[in-house]
Amino acid sequence: MTRVPHPREAVPAPLVTAAGGTDFVLGIDVGGTKVAVATAAVDGRILRRTRIDTDASRGALQTVERALHTAAELRAGTSAATGGRCLGAGVASPGVVHEDRVLMAPNIPGWEELSLPALVRERLDLAVVAADNDVKAAGLAEVRWGALRGVDPGIYLNLGTGLAAALVVGGRVLSGAHNAAGEIGYLLRDAADTAAAASGRAPLEEYFSGMGLARRGAELLGGSPSAAALFASAEPRARALVDDALDQLSVHVANLATVLDPQRIAVGGGMMASAERVLAALGGRLREAVPFPPELVPSAFPHDSALHGALALVLDELGPAAGPPTGAA
Amino acid sequence: MTRVPHPREAVPAPLVTAAGGTDFVLGIDVGGTKVAVATAAVDGRILRRTRIDTDASRGALQTVERALHTAAELRAGTSAATGGRCLGAGVASPGVVHEDRVLMAPNIPGWEELSLPALVRERLDLAVVAADNDVKAAGLAEVRWGALRGVDPGIYLNLGTGLAAALVVGGRVLSGAHNAAGEIGYLLRDAADTAAAASGRAPLEEYFSGMGLARRGAELLGGSPSAAALFASAEPRARALVDDALDQLSVHVANLATVLDPQRIAVGGGMMASAERVLAALGGRLREAVPFPPELVPSAFPHDSALHGALALVLDELGPAAGPPTGAA
Repeated sequence: MTRVPHPREAVPAPLVTAAGGTDFVLGIDVGGTKVAVATAAVDGRILRRTRIDTDASRGALQTVERALHTAAELRAGTSAATGGRCLGAGVASPGVVHEDRVLMAPNIPGWEELSLPALVRERLDLAVVAADNDVKAAGLAEVRWGALRGVDPGIYLNLGTGLAAALVVGGRVLSGAHNAAGEIGYLLRDAADTAAAASGRAPLEEYFSGMGLARRGAELLGGSPSAAALFASAEPRARALVDDALDQLSVHVANLATVLDPQRIAVGGGMMASAERVLAALGGRLREAVPFPPELVPSAFPHDSALHGALALVLDELGPAAGPPTGAA
Repeated sequence: MTRVPHPREAVPAPLVTAAGGTDFVLGIDVGGTKVAVATAAVDGRILRRTRIDTDASRGALQTVERALHTAAELRAGTSAATGGRCLGAGVASPGVVHEDRVLMAPNIPGWEELSLPALVRERLDLAVVAADNDVKAAGLAEVRWGALRGVDPGIYLNLGTGLAAALVVGGRVLSGAHNAAGEIGYLLRDAADTAAAASGRAPLEEYFSGMGLARRGAELLGGSPSAAALFASAEPRARALVDDALDQLSVHVANLATVLDPQRIAVGGGMMASAERVLAALGGRLREAVPFPPELVPSAFPHDSALHGALALVLDELGPAAGPPTGAA
């Protein structure tokens, strides 16, 4: 099994080794700006990896076509190097992933009409394809190999371009009745949020997320500052904007913890580039507001959580027969 | 198995029959104003029942002494009538119930220091005693015999003297890492709620609950109006108080549904005496705010949910060997 560092330790880069003669799996993480593809041994160790631009403005289908072409090449290369077979593929994608469509993924035009698992299954001629939401997949990777191993319940909180969480119960990520559990971008901030999901709005995500902060920063300061630029800025209004957004977010993270009573919350996503500031804001609120405050730790896979998640999805789908145990303690 | 009415049907009173020669269980529901005690067949049908006043002002120990005396009498009576043995007891109580203490139950003086399961086990000479929080127990009864049968995930929402929920995942009530999952009385209403659980406060419960409404009604209108009186009042300020409280509550119920993505929410507790008004306020918000709005139904046991819960606790603890299957579909 992959050596799993304690969540508070620095996380080493995954080993890139060729496990001669062994079978492997394929993982594809389709994001708004890049598609990451990797092959991995059945214990989750990444063997080969690459990435391409999503180029979302040119539409969803060309993204998938190029991703599948890249995946096929990576598979051929891994197979030639290891002599093993590809056992299946895992796909992580924004939105609520169903067999014949993807819901709630407005950031890649055309993405919602794709039969994503079927496309991957057919084009790559694979019997086993598992697909799920990218944040749920990332949460699963944290359960299997990362900061949420043996934690029950646990929460993986993703602070990225969007805002979402994965709720971990009994070593599994909770899907909910419509695979939409943990979609905290849709949370109401208060009773005045009368326009919400049914009106195509996502109140908390519009307020706090990479997208939401960038939009609000542009309104406040002019130009088109990124969320990262706002976090880095010493300009007083930018600082106040970020501080207030973190304060608002902390209310909802604390409420999420009160509801679920988790043992630990692992935080990932691009905003963890400012980990100290983010964790200070969340931690203070958790200690005051939650009857039994959970641990708060950085996620174990800060840069490629959904790619590891895609690999965890297919390995879970293949089950223990595929290789060494990958389950939580 | 007990006939389970559809949650939208009127719920008939439980059958009080003597199942000759069969074994039975004991259920004890300790509430802030009354203690309900019942014996039931292993399929959950209530055989005999009674209740006594809690008389909380006289302290926790006398309540438990009288409850155990009443339980012993009821057991003897049931045993004489049926010729069966008592297989065990279930106890539902406010607070977070542990083997040697009860946490977060400030409304019965001395309650927190009791070793409740041990006392019941010793005094009634029973090998099997299961104890849990009253709202979690009520949620379990809804899963086994009521409005949440076969529902996954589901939420039981209790709007009573206090405010709490039971989260149902995979046919079980989620306990959380400290048996405090679903304690939504501690939710923050907004970022200004800086005094919360760590300061002995329960922000949402202080605002919306039988206790909270009564206190706020007294401040607004003078006298000591009960929550029921406020709900029934046509006085404009009382109406506005209740409407605003329901509006605030609806934000949190909608957010709870967004987080968990439940199939159905069952609502119980004393405030369901005004079911139409409560469900209208919650339903409107759920439809607007939740990506996949859940069904919203009254609970199946409006008057004695925690007593049925106490019975469900011990029957779950005894397992399928105790009798006919009682599990969710």
